[in-house]
This record gives sequence, C-alpha cells and structure tokens, in this order.
Amino acid sequence: MKTISGGVCAPKGFKAGGIWCGVKASSKKRDLALIYSEKSCAAAAMFTTNRVKAACVIVSQKHLAGGKLHAIIANSGNANACTGEAGLAAAKRMTELAADEFAISPETVAVASTGVIGVPLPIAAIENSVGALANSLRGDEAGHSAALEAIMTTDTRKKDISVEIEGGARIGGMVKGSGMIHPNMATMLCFLTTDVAISRELLEASLRRAVQRSFNRVTVDGDTSTNDMVLIMANGASGITAAEGSVEYEAFNLALESVCVSLARAMARDGEGATKLVTVTVNGASNEKNAEILAKSVASSSLVKAACFGADANWGRILCAMGYSGAEFDPDRTNVSFKSKAGEVAVFAKGAPIKFFEDVAKKILSEEEIEIAIKAGEGSGSATAWGCDLTYDYVKINGDYRT
Amino acid sequence: MKTISGGVCAPKGFKAGGIWCGVKASSKKRDLALIYSEKSCAAAAMFTTNRVKAACVIVSQKHLAGGKLHAIIANSGNANACTGEAGLAAAKRMTELAADEFAISPETVAVASTGVIGVPLPIAAIENSVGALANSLRGDEAGHSAALEAIMTTDTRKKDISVEIEGGARIGGMVKGSGMIHPNMATMLCFLTTDVAISRELLEASLRRAVQRSFNRVTVDGDTSTNDMVLIMANGASGITAAEGSVEYEAFNLALESVCVSLARAMARDGEGATKLVTVTVNGASNEKNAEILAKSVASSSLVKAACFGADANWGRILCAMGYSGAEFDPDRTNVSFKSKAGEVAVFAKGAPIKFFEDVAKKILSEEEIEIAIKAGEGSGSATAWGCDLTYDYVKINGDYRT
Repeated sequence: MKTISGGVCAPKGFKAGGIWCGVKASSKKRDLALIYSEKSCAAAAMFTTNRVKAACVIVSQKHLAGGKLHAIIANSGNANACTGEAGLAAAKRMTELAADEFAISPETVAVASTGVIGVPLPIAAIENSVGALANSLRGDEAGHSAALEAIMTTDTRKKDISVEIEGGARIGGMVKGSGMIHPNMATMLCFLTTDVAISRELLEASLRRAVQRSFNRVTVDGDTSTNDMVLIMANGASGITAAEGSVEYEAFNLALESVCVSLARAMARDGEGATKLVTVTVNGASNEKNAEILAKSVASSSLVKAACFGADANWGRILCAMGYSGAEFDPDRTNVSFKSKAGEVAVFAKGAPIKFFEDVAKKILSEEEIEIAIKAGEGSGSATAWGCDLTYDYVKINGDYRT
Repeated sequence: MKTISGGVCAPKGFKAGGIWCGVKASSKKRDLALIYSEKSCAAAAMFTTNRVKAACVIVSQKHLAGGKLHAIIANSGNANACTGEAGLAAAKRMTELAADEFAISPETVAVASTGVIGVPLPIAAIENSVGALANSLRGDEAGHSAALEAIMTTDTRKKDISVEIEGGARIGGMVKGSGMIHPNMATMLCFLTTDVAISRELLEASLRRAVQRSFNRVTVDGDTSTNDMVLIMANGASGITAAEGSVEYEAFNLALESVCVSLARAMARDGEGATKLVTVTVNGASNEKNAEILAKSVASSSLVKAACFGADANWGRILCAMGYSGAEFDPDRTNVSFKSKAGEVAVFAKGAPIKFFEDVAKKILSEEEIEIAIKAGEGSGSATAWGCDLTYDYVKINGDYRT
C-alpha cells in the first residue's frame, strides 16, 4: 500500500467539487460540496448514536437502506438539526436537487450537514447554486480539495488521504471534525471513496471494523453530536473485485483501517484549540475491550488533557482515569511511561512512582505528538486511543461559538 | 430547621483544630486537622469508587467497619495515594498518633488525606506536631475554621454549614473539594458531625440517601479521585434520639440532606477556575433515575460548560448532551429555558427552537448562579444536578498542578 495524491478523486470514476452558495453568509467560505460517481456505487455508512438526529442523518439513513449511491451532497455553516418538519423537507430537497443534475434517483444521493444547530437551513441558496456546484465537479485533487474545504467549519487544517493498494485499487478519504469529537462519532463527517468492486455487505463489515478501531477511539471533549456520519462509496471502476475470503478483500480491509486511523489521528490532532496529539496505548489488558476502555478513559480525562497541555508528567491522573474507567486492572501490575520523538521516560511501575527527572519528562511532553504508554499486567489485550490536550483556546472557541 | 454558627463544633461535644505541621512545605498554610468527640460516636462513611484507592481510604474503610469513632485526623498537601506499603503504614500511623493523644483505640480514628499523588507522606512532620494539634482543639467556630483550613487545597473559599433541627439537635459540616469533582465523589473530603443519638444502621441509610441526592449530583470535570470520603459522626450528646420511624429521625434525615445539598452546591460553585454555579433541573422525565442521568449529562458536558462561561444560550449543546446520555426522552416533547435572578428565557419547545432575544439570554446567563431548566414530557421524574462553567483558569490550574 502506498500513499498517493487525489483524495476522494484518487479512485477511478469519482469527481468532486465545492463552492460558496451563501449558507456561510458572512465568511463567504466554501459551504456546499458534492462527490459524484457516474457508475452506481455499493455504499455503507455509520451514523451518530445520539438520540437527537439531524434531518440529514434521518434522510441519509433512509437512502442508505437501498445500499446504492451515486452522490453525496453536503453543506457546512448550518447543521439542519432540531429544525422540525421544514428541516426534513430541506434535507430531502438537497438530495432531489443533486439528483436532478444527473438524472438519477434522489434515493441514490446521501446528504450531510454541519454547523450551527436549530437555525432553518437557507435552502433557496442551495437551490440557486446547485447547477454551479455540478459544473464545478473535477476528477482531480483540485476537485477533492474544493469539496473538502466546503465541509470544514472550525477545522484548522485539511484532513485527507488517498492510497493505492497492491494490485492497483484505490481508496480516498476526507474528514471534517475538530470539536465535539468522541467515541461514537460527534460532529464529524467522513467521506470515503474506492474503485474496488465489493458487495454492500462486505463493504459494511469492513467499514464497521475500521471505524471501531479508528474514529470510535478518538476523543476530543466527550460530547457527541447530532450530525455525524462516515460514508463509503465503492464503484468498482478499477475492475478489481474484493470477494469474501480473497487476498484482494483482505488487502482492502487493512487499507481501509489504515486510511481511517490516519484520518482519525488527524482529527484528534486538530481538536478545537489543541496544540498536541495525545496517543494512549494500552498493552497487557485482560482483552481488547478492556484495553479500549482504559485507553479511552485516559484520553478523555480533562485533567490528563490539561496536564498534557502543561507538559506536566502527572501520572497520578492517568492512574485515576484508569481507576474510574470501570475496566479491570491492578495498579500493582501496571507500568506507565511517556514517549515522544524527544525520548521516553518511565514514571510508574508496579503500584508505585519511579524516580525520574522532571526536566526530561517536560522535554518529552513538550513535543507536538506525545504518547502515554500503559502496560497492564492482566493479559494480552491491546488498544490505542487518540486525543488532544485541553487548552485555553478550547474554552475560547466554545465559549461563544454561535456569534 | 435554622442555620446556626459553629460548623462541625456546633453539635454538642465536638472539638476541632488545625495547624501547620510541614506537609505543605513551601506555603506554610495549615495542613493537619483533627475533629474529636470525647463521647464515642456512631459513624458511617462513603468512599471513592475508584479502583485505585489511597492508603487513608483503605485504613479508614477498615476502621469504619467497627461503626464507632472518636476522631478524624486529616492532612492536606499530600494524598498518600499510590505510595505502596509505606503509604499504608503512614496512614495507620496517623490513626495511632491521634489515638495516643486521647488514650483511645486507633480503630476509633478515621484518617483522610488530600493533595499530590505518589509522593511519600512526610510522616515525621505529623509525628512531631500531633501534640500541638491535640492542644489546638477548641469547641467553637474558631476550632472548626482552623480544621477546615487545614484540609483545603485548591479551594478558593471555605465551604461549611451548621443547622439546628426543630427540637434542638444539631448537624455541622465542612467540605473540601473543587477540582476533579464528579458523581461518585472525587477529591472531596466531607466531615459531618451531629449530636443526635442514632444507630449506626440508620445513620448509614441517611448518609447514603443524602449523598446520592447531593454530592453524587455534582460534576466539575468528570474525573473521580483516589481519596474521596464523606464521613459522619453522631455522639448523641444532645440527648435527642432519632429512632426508626420517629419524627426526630424524619427531621434528621431531611436536615442531613439539606446540609449535604448546601455543601454540594458550594463545591460546584468553587469548581477549579469556575466563575458560575450551573444548576440543571430536569422535570417530567420517565423516572428519577432518568432525570438524574439527563441532568448530570448536561451538567458534565464540556461544551455546555464552555457556553455557560461565554453566557452563550447554546441550547443545541443541551439537546446534544441529553441525546447521548443514554436516558430515554423525546426532543419533540422537551422544553428548555434559562433562568437566573435576572429573569427567565425559553429557548426550545417541543422539538424546535423558540425565537428569543440574544441580549436578554446573555443578561440572564451572565449572572453568577444560572439554571438550565429542562421539562421533558415523559412522566413525573425529577432531579437536580450542579456543575460550573469551564474557564481559562480551569486549564491554567490543571495545566501544571504539581509545580
């Protein structure tokens, strides 16, 4: 597997585009995106588990039930959530508008929105611009890039990747999301494309596994949102088939997990106001589930996150967070160390702190990417979770988001 | 029931004191406290549910098993947690030192610690000062106040209360805690005294109920600690007996809940870096348990807390937090409003936002005590949770606590 350019347009047969239509009224940044495949695609998606679901989630869930898509239309600047019947009609209308451009069925179009909750979606702006949106489609990196810009909100950087798997099939992806990101996907949109030929069932299984080991192990602030979705479209244009049990499927499966992990890490790194990517690795837990619970509990702790911001080797908070996670472990068989490219320092071993130099720990924790490495003494379960530090800017960004 | 002065010394027969012994080496603030009753007390306590327990918790749990106490000795500046066998010996030694002063059994002494984790407790400093500590005991407000100061860490204000119940029995209490406070009690110490005569079993039932409706509904940052305890001693010195089913017991029960709610609110208000007390009330939930889950989820949300800091009427985040709480509710039957002494503004009704004036909402949310009032349409379950806003200072305090 190698990294290539092109984003969601890297796989054959996909086009993308993004324009400004007026939903982001004041900033005039791109706010309307489209990803399109002329060839019909097998499609799978995972949606927010929040009991309050945005209109776009409800409509897309319905359309995904058919398992076939040609396009995704998405807007930023307005989440179209908590907007009642009018919101549902607007989300449906977005799929119709896109469908009309290509003479396809609206049921083969998914719709996504992100932005402020509870404000009616200015659907007229989208109606007026959908022709221009369709005209903006391009099968190259520029098309991908315009679409990606058009789904970004508080994101501070573009988060995307594309890879070519041995044999020639490709996967491309983009993700939007920085605040409110937590296990079970909050205010994140992830669109993935591939030109492998694959059944909807296998695609769904691959996506579920990949999301579980990537996006569902990212935590920024513990809140989950009303609008999240991860969606993949497979158009088969490469001519390579990933059939059950085949080496092609195995390769696709691994590549998709790797793509999702890369996007998940980028999202954690871009947490609202974050200055650091914090990776928590747990080894030696009684099983993978317990390892995941421990890793996520540490990565979610406000106190651990604040300590990471301050480059403070506060291992006590790590033990605390493990202690209230609910997962079984014995502190007397637990080791903790901090790692980064500046080095490694062990701080806790078998129930007691280890003597270490504060200056060394501070240097290690001052890097932009740091790892909290936990070795439990229970078994062979391991898992990785990704988070970020808690900073002044997080408070600033979220103290007055709507104005 | 009326509020009186005296704190834990308000009930008859209790003395308290606090001195500086040297655990808080640099600040020279009081760091060693004692509460004592010559008369033997029925005693009950609730301890942290964290899997990692400080030495003092382990020792006190053991001593509480006897159900009888004469004294509590407590230090601040060092949590004596994750300190291995030496830590356990030090905690036990503290109970022996206090016991020797009064020729009582060490098993009738509880011990508590709060402060930095993982640093050996300087037990020699305590040994050298325990005589002076015993000499500092006073049966008045000044004794109470010195003891309270000696258990404070990042607390910015004294949190205490004392009340006289109809008939003349009294309850006094003090609490320490500001950061890391969450349901199930984190880094909080609460010491309660009463001169009612009550069985240990009834006392335990009263305490459990009161804590569930007060401290367990406070949330500051979601982390729970290794050292928490709420402890009550009843010496019977008032001559008033609270027997099962009696009006005296009923009055005591209500008064204890009220004392605990008052201390819990004070603790939420004093959350690390907090500028506001945020009260979340839920009415109309399907039952009390679901009401509690909803209220706590809203009060715990980092995004809601940051919005409160910014006086931003961001009701979308409230719906979000309810949505991922796991409790059943239907947004289409839910109303949300904000209240404070500046007024009340409804922002969401039955699935959709209500038009409101941002300036009015801002004014209401700019008060020091604000309420998020949620009316679900499921049944008659209600609950209240207390939290605080998330501020720059929270990040500052926790970014580098140890140095």
